[in-house]
Amino acid sequence: MITVGIIGMGRIGKVHTTSIATRVQNARIKTAADPFMTEETAAWAKSMGVEHTTKDYHEIINDPEIDAVLICSSTDTHSQISLEAIAAGKHIFCEKPIDHDVARIQEVVEALKGKNLKYMVGFNRRFDHNFRAVQQAVAAGKVGKPEIIKITSRDPEPPSPEYVKVSGGMFLDMTIHDFDMARFLAGCDAVEVYAQAANLVDPAIGEAGDIDTAIITLKMENGALAVIDNCRRAAYGYDQRAEVFGSLGMAAASNDSASNVQISTADGVTGEKPLFFFLERYMDAYGREVSEFVDAIVNDTPTPLGVEDGLKPVLMGIAAKKSLDEHRPVRIEEVL
Amino acid sequence: MITVGIIGMGRIGKVHTTSIATRVQNARIKTAADPFMTEETAAWAKSMGVEHTTKDYHEIINDPEIDAVLICSSTDTHSQISLEAIAAGKHIFCEKPIDHDVARIQEVVEALKGKNLKYMVGFNRRFDHNFRAVQQAVAAGKVGKPEIIKITSRDPEPPSPEYVKVSGGMFLDMTIHDFDMARFLAGCDAVEVYAQAANLVDPAIGEAGDIDTAIITLKMENGALAVIDNCRRAAYGYDQRAEVFGSLGMAAASNDSASNVQISTADGVTGEKPLFFFLERYMDAYGREVSEFVDAIVNDTPTPLGVEDGLKPVLMGIAAKKSLDEHRPVRIEEVL
Amino acid sequence: MITVGIIGMGRIGKVHTTSIATRVQNARIKTAADPFMTEETAAWAKSMGVEHTTKDYHEIINDPEIDAVLICSSTDTHSQISLEAIAAGKHIFCEKPIDHDVARIQEVVEALKGKNLKYMVGFNRRFDHNFRAVQQAVAAGKVGKPEIIKITSRDPEPPSPEYVKVSGGMFLDMTIHDFDMARFLAGCDAVEVYAQAANLVDPAIGEAGDIDTAIITLKMENGALAVIDNCRRAAYGYDQRAEVFGSLGMAAASNDSASNVQISTADGVTGEKPLFFFLERYMDAYGREVSEFVDAIVNDTPTPLGVEDGLKPVLMGIAAKKSLDEHRPVRIEEVL
Amino acid sequence: MITVGIIGMGRIGKVHTTSIATRVQNARIKTAADPFMTEETAAWAKSMGVEHTTKDYHEIINDPEIDAVLICSSTDTHSQISLEAIAAGKHIFCEKPIDHDVARIQEVVEALKGKNLKYMVGFNRRFDHNFRAVQQAVAAGKVGKPEIIKITSRDPEPPSPEYVKVSGGMFLDMTIHDFDMARFLAGCDAVEVYAQAANLVDPAIGEAGDIDTAIITLKMENGALAVIDNCRRAAYGYDQRAEVFGSLGMAAASNDSASNVQISTADGVTGEKPLFFFLERYMDAYGREVSEFVDAIVNDTPTPLGVEDGLKPVLMGIAAKKSLDEHRPVRIEEVL
Repeated sequence: MITVGIIGMGRIGKVHTTSIATRVQNARIKTAADPFMTEETAAWAKSMGVEHTTKDYHEIINDPEIDAVLICSSTDTHSQISLEAIAAGKHIFCEKPIDHDVARIQEVVEALKGKNLKYMVGFNRRFDHNFRAVQQAVAAGKVGKPEIIKITSRDPEPPSPEYVKVSGGMFLDMTIHDFDMARFLAGCDAVEVYAQAANLVDPAIGEAGDIDTAIITLKMENGALAVIDNCRRAAYGYDQRAEVFGSLGMAAASNDSASNVQISTADGVTGEKPLFFFLERYMDAYGREVSEFVDAIVNDTPTPLGVEDGLKPVLMGIAAKKSLDEHRPVRIEEVL
Repeated sequence: MITVGIIGMGRIGKVHTTSIATRVQNARIKTAADPFMTEETAAWAKSMGVEHTTKDYHEIINDPEIDAVLICSSTDTHSQISLEAIAAGKHIFCEKPIDHDVARIQEVVEALKGKNLKYMVGFNRRFDHNFRAVQQAVAAGKVGKPEIIKITSRDPEPPSPEYVKVSGGMFLDMTIHDFDMARFLAGCDAVEVYAQAANLVDPAIGEAGDIDTAIITLKMENGALAVIDNCRRAAYGYDQRAEVFGSLGMAAASNDSASNVQISTADGVTGEKPLFFFLERYMDAYGREVSEFVDAIVNDTPTPLGVEDGLKPVLMGIAAKKSLDEHRPVRIEEVL
Repeated sequence: MITVGIIGMGRIGKVHTTSIATRVQNARIKTAADPFMTEETAAWAKSMGVEHTTKDYHEIINDPEIDAVLICSSTDTHSQISLEAIAAGKHIFCEKPIDHDVARIQEVVEALKGKNLKYMVGFNRRFDHNFRAVQQAVAAGKVGKPEIIKITSRDPEPPSPEYVKVSGGMFLDMTIHDFDMARFLAGCDAVEVYAQAANLVDPAIGEAGDIDTAIITLKMENGALAVIDNCRRAAYGYDQRAEVFGSLGMAAASNDSASNVQISTADGVTGEKPLFFFLERYMDAYGREVSEFVDAIVNDTPTPLGVEDGLKPVLMGIAAKKSLDEHRPVRIEEVL
Repeated sequence: MITVGIIGMGRIGKVHTTSIATRVQNARIKTAADPFMTEETAAWAKSMGVEHTTKDYHEIINDPEIDAVLICSSTDTHSQISLEAIAAGKHIFCEKPIDHDVARIQEVVEALKGKNLKYMVGFNRRFDHNFRAVQQAVAAGKVGKPEIIKITSRDPEPPSPEYVKVSGGMFLDMTIHDFDMARFLAGCDAVEVYAQAANLVDPAIGEAGDIDTAIITLKMENGALAVIDNCRRAAYGYDQRAEVFGSLGMAAASNDSASNVQISTADGVTGEKPLFFFLERYMDAYGREVSEFVDAIVNDTPTPLGVEDGLKPVLMGIAAKKSLDEHRPVRIEEVL
């Protein structure tokens, strides 16, 4: 049994709190911290078995009883808190991305060297039942040598222009998950990126300096070609699909919906839309993700994702932005 | 190359004319007969390569150049024309049913004895790509020993009460196809029938003395149980499905539609309805059916269905009616 | 917040314990009782927040602090414990069936009269996301007036002959769920049953006096026809489907599987089998079921199922057995 | 009724001969020409109603009775025969591509100017039931403003290295169909192309100077982004899919197979592979294509595709090759 602290009690901090309370066997949450901790949140946390709440995350960092921290605070604090937690000898689960700045991530990489600490980045989609089944089929050789990887990732609703301004841009905010998925499915890194993008959904996003629709092509180290298509708005809900095509065939994952019921009438045969957004689609994946982090600590085995898995998608996102700006394919090594 | 005559140039006579004209390699139509032959139909027939048209089918029966006749006239003439054609030494393709009267069918069976003539009954659904694939899977042992057979058969629109009055009743007019399908998929005969039915669609059908909705259960000779569900009206179109469940698994056929396109919007994910009715769904099957009849003559091989395949479903229909009337399960041997 | 006791800590008692511990907001489990309570089970119960464990369920019945009991013990004890709990003024959630003996169920019905107690029978499938969506579509009028209801229910593996001997027979042990589903989807009671059945899966089941494969047809009070097909063994897993066909169309639910991944190779396009058995398929439904029971107590609203919903399917099962024995359709009123 | 001549009696010439013989109402084939006309082909043509066969296509060009020619000869002859047929005042149906050389196509464009002649290029996929349904949904506004277009096109088996050498390269030989599909679905031209490609399937194709796997991204005139993925070999058969995503939703077409039968066993749920190759998948589309060409002549209406629809995909293919060679996005106007 390990003792954890959760830093950041926004939406995702609450998801992880619930997972640990209800389905993770070997962990208890001692402390939850949030600079804006409300009475309501504190009461909810207690109802979930959290022993103590605070506005100051240092109470977690400095608590010798706490083995591991989950960093669920705002992105701009991830690397700083990571460094403090490493210094304090804590295992770390950090929400993606570690930072938008490669140098800051590399500080974390450096700080971890020689320490016997687990560091896991929260790319939740790797724990989705569908994508995991595709990856396992590929890894088991069922599609042969991967040749074409296709990832579709579209959000149901665009973010506010205010969010867009601080998001780091679509490639680092949204596509970063798909960059991780490309690495996960291909089983290797990308070597080159070409991004084609446009502002088609909401002019305010363009005015905020970002794009909202994109097709990004990748060359992977193993020779496979990959393509990601993104849009910040899909009228029918959260569209999350992937396929891997190889020398022996194809493995493809489609969307899940709330039921599989088909209604046939004079107007056609109609089924439900995909599950609305990430909390609906990936709730189970969030639970599995934290379980596997805890298991890795308890059993002293490698975490499913390491700190380098936090770095690589950021490099891909930076390369994609450079590709878009310079209107040419960009090699990953150019942005290192 | 064989020479055929077609008796009856209604809807189904035209379907077979078209098939022979466009896709059957080894047959030509010399004569088409219909008591109500119009100039328009005659002109159409000639455009399809029919050499001669007439109102008198005896021109076909008595033509020594004609090898085979296709009987596509009204049901009440099938057995009489069959007997005449057998006497004239013609091979026969007869639309279902041979007759509603078992004794009349047995006259045909008797007349065929000792003759080296092909007699094929037109149960077109055996030639449907989907149902054939189910049957082939079963025959190949892929589902093991058959245990449960389920057949759904629903028409898009109910017939007129006038038609209902002369139809022989739903069991002999509509379910007869499903009785044949049960025999086809099980690979054996039925031994007992229980019919549950109601008049739910159109009161005029009830006033005409018939039912329009039914669930018929069967015991098959090989021990399998079978169930047919029928309705004279399905708002979403022609519903034609079948599944065979056995000791090793299940083979199931669903409906076809005009395209497989799925449209995803804020309202759901919508596909097309099933193909509208039997001409749309089974057009290809009609062609294959006649091709195989012609092939059986040319190669002197057995036809895919024989005269007994015309008798058995009629017995099942009569037993079903008796079951409904007497509100009890009825053994097939009771109606022989 | 209500306080509950759980009687019976077998498989299903543990499922409900987990649900209450992890997803039911307004209930705590004070006591769990089981005559064969092991140290291991007691430890597990405590880890799930159960305060007290015992071998004697009377500690629950006699505890004035406990508001409600969940009866998860063996079937032969359900009605007796129900009566005791009613006498003690407890709300009751009782696993199906209340009893195999109609007179015993009616004692429970009588005992409840005039008491302001909730009594809910655990037909979990009503809480399945797919079946609920079908029922809601029907209740919302999307398929018009129901005419044909089809329920497929096949288990992955047959029970042991020992279990079969004490099971009450397949109709009361397995089909009882489908009888409830027919009532749920039709929105009314059955008036007549006809059962066709066979021993096809395992001769030992036949030797134990039971059948393992059946097709049961029903006439419903609203005029709809219904059909249930059952088998004790499906090679591909737990097969749980339903469709309701009506004057305006059809709503149909198919199986769920662990992922929706399709693998296309030279051998075909392959997806996963249905989820293995009831714990996999209905885990979420079990949680929703208990939540709604607790909500009904907390809000003093009717439970989704009442004691009469426990009686009716038993009557249908007894009528089905009588139909099979006497080889004729049997009206429900005959077995009352 | 119009009179046509067919030039080239290879595989596709025979397909069109069969279509005209069996399903095109208003056309007869007077003459079929092929420099390698065999006795067998001539006999087959006569059995399909072709009146005359010859090795010299000038017999068609010079025949004043012939209204229209179908050019089904080898690609290198298309533009030359087009010019001769235009000079002779014939309507023309020309298989794709008109030529690999833009200047040669422009000669054809010029020659047509001021002539009242129909010129249709045979991009058969526009007549496929599935792709047509997608295009119609888009044109009807069901998906709103198009934003992302995705086309998958993979052949079951790679061509021989000998064929590759004379094919004009994968972009002009295979992707050209997908370039046309992008224009068809978007309803506008492309303005920029970026091609990423590799030789992954067969080293002999690389030695022949070509690639066999590619992802090509396009910017369309209406602002939509498009992506095509190609492979010369798919283990599971001919993979031909398309989707159009827009402001209101998505329309997506998947593959067809020989039957929709699903077989469920202990190994999973298996369906058939896609139809094997273009003759299986597009046989019906080939018939519709020629019917619409004949209708356009008979009714003097525009053909569904004009000569410019033959030019544009060639420009896209040339731009794609330039993009691959120069490793940068290329604007279509650069290659004009």
